[in-house]
Amino acid sequence: MPELRKDPITDRWVIISSERGKRPNDFTTVITSKNNASSPFSYGNEHMTPPEIYAIRENSQQPDTPGWKLRVVPNKYPALKIETAPGERKEGIFHSRNNFGAHEVIIETPEMLDRLEYLPVNAIAEVFKVFKQRIVTLKGDRRLKYVLIFKNQGVAAGASLQHSHSQLIALPMVPKEVNEEMCGAQRYFGKQNRCIFCDIIAQELKNDIRVIYEAAAVVAIEPFAARVPFETWILPKTHASHFETTDDTHLKHLAVAFKIVMQKLNTALQSPAYNFVLHTAPLQETSRQDYHWHFEVLPRLENVAGFEWGTGFYINSTSPEAAAQLLNEIVV
Amino acid sequence: MPELRKDPITDRWVIISSERGKRPNDFTTVITSKNNASSPFSYGNEHMTPPEIYAIRENSQQPDTPGWKLRVVPNKYPALKIETAPGERKEGIFHSRNNFGAHEVIIETPEMLDRLEYLPVNAIAEVFKVFKQRIVTLKGDRRLKYVLIFKNQGVAAGASLQHSHSQLIALPMVPKEVNEEMCGAQRYFGKQNRCIFCDIIAQELKNDIRVIYEAAAVVAIEPFAARVPFETWILPKTHASHFETTDDTHLKHLAVAFKIVMQKLNTALQSPAYNFVLHTAPLQETSRQDYHWHFEVLPRLENVAGFEWGTGFYINSTSPEAAAQLLNEIVV
Repeated sequence: MPELRKDPITDRWVIISSERGKRPNDFTTVITSKNNASSPFSYGNEHMTPPEIYAIRENSQQPDTPGWKLRVVPNKYPALKIETAPGERKEGIFHSRNNFGAHEVIIETPEMLDRLEYLPVNAIAEVFKVFKQRIVTLKGDRRLKYVLIFKNQGVAAGASLQHSHSQLIALPMVPKEVNEEMCGAQRYFGKQNRCIFCDIIAQELKNDIRVIYEAAAVVAIEPFAARVPFETWILPKTHASHFETTDDTHLKHLAVAFKIVMQKLNTALQSPAYNFVLHTAPLQETSRQDYHWHFEVLPRLENVAGFEWGTGFYINSTSPEAAAQLLNEIVV
Repeated sequence: MPELRKDPITDRWVIISSERGKRPNDFTTVITSKNNASSPFSYGNEHMTPPEIYAIRENSQQPDTPGWKLRVVPNKYPALKIETAPGERKEGIFHSRNNFGAHEVIIETPEMLDRLEYLPVNAIAEVFKVFKQRIVTLKGDRRLKYVLIFKNQGVAAGASLQHSHSQLIALPMVPKEVNEEMCGAQRYFGKQNRCIFCDIIAQELKNDIRVIYEAAAVVAIEPFAARVPFETWILPKTHASHFETTDDTHLKHLAVAFKIVMQKLNTALQSPAYNFVLHTAPLQETSRQDYHWHFEVLPRLENVAGFEWGTGFYINSTSPEAAAQLLNEIVV
């Protein structure tokens, strides 16, 4: 049975998702459905996905029929399920939980479009608004502690469908990576009484060697300790710990920033595979002074190798300053 | 200048290795030199690598000439260099260090062989002996805190040369991943007064659903919270924190285990790309009761995706029990 398992040494969780039931021959990812007719995310193919959770429609049509602008459905091969009763087990030293949670797909457009950034700014802002709405709704289930919104763009980034979509996984615990960020931010706040992200933004804007986009409300930087070439963070300038508190005007500013940043990356790197992740404060916490939500965009130009697996450190062959310089030469 | 940088939020280090000076077009990995004539790791091509650090030779020939059985050279594009003076810098909130350390390549055979496991057991044992000798030698430099030995096998695992080789990176700090393992092991020891790895081995041997190899001295398991399909750990049965204390007889047993385990994985998964990493206790520490060295083998069947980047958690589509069952059906 699919379940969440905790590594007894590091306390790292994994989702054993044998639902997909892969046999050794099944691991080659093939992108299928390269046109509207065959894409499960196009008009007329609504039956190819599980019933919709949410949709934006012009008129009040029937669910799971054409006419929508944006559609949210459960993942067909969910890592976690909301219907599963939470439950824990011990097996000697080992600890596991039922695969309770949620795994949703945000279909960003009915058109067979390759990339979110190809959409007009208003449509991108709608996508971000849906991210917000899903977080607000899932927050209502007090058993859920965290929602990670992410995108796998391209085979090298883990995508198996070409039609532009994002994903959401809601977890019954706060994940390791977010915990580490929050602990670090808390440590800094304890010493300085300031948000570390706000201080990074201030220092980066002052130095101006790693900033690649700046507007009134949003900034994008190549982070000082970038893990991969052209890693890019997009952050709101005004402090906010929870993404879901962002108002529509700000979501529009964010959409503008995202589109410009991605156009620059696509020009510099010939439309690379990439992941983005949205890091925001945990669902059930009230506003935090020490944490600051942000997007992390990770172009997938090189494969993660043994050194990274073995150390948790990264070797990055392009300095963030060089990446910023190149991106700043590109006018979009 | 290449340097080590610390992420101010998570304290995660990255190596900015602009030595390789990649331009945006340079990221496609191409495996070249598919035969002895063109491989920089073959007889007659010794000049294509930096001068050798160590070699096993039958007779006392000149260094950097043919006739060797195994050769250790600095990486031609080193992430870290032993000649660099240690040194630290602060830039406001940011912290960096000179790229002091070592980055070596262990050329496992002069023959243009694809994979370490294709070598006879005695030759594999020689490779492990060289791992040990390099650790012992580098331990002499008190500024070095950790040696990670790893292998990138195949393009999907980050390899850029086909000729079978391992790598070694010596660091002036203990890496995050190892620190987390050690902290977890220490916590467990504090409660139970036993090594967690020894307890895992005992429980796995008793349950016998995830064991894929057992001999007098060595055991191989699919770990309970495997991060990727067919992740495999190879561990000594007798407690030991430092790999470099292993005697030659045990290294031979380890070579037998490695060869059999890899043959099983190669049969099950059609000779997959894989990484292995050797996790051992830090260089400058004396023997620890709570830590247990081991190899981690990670077949690279699927790409790391956004969920993994964003959470530090993993989704694994094959349960370790199913993987073990399949591997146990394969007789080698």
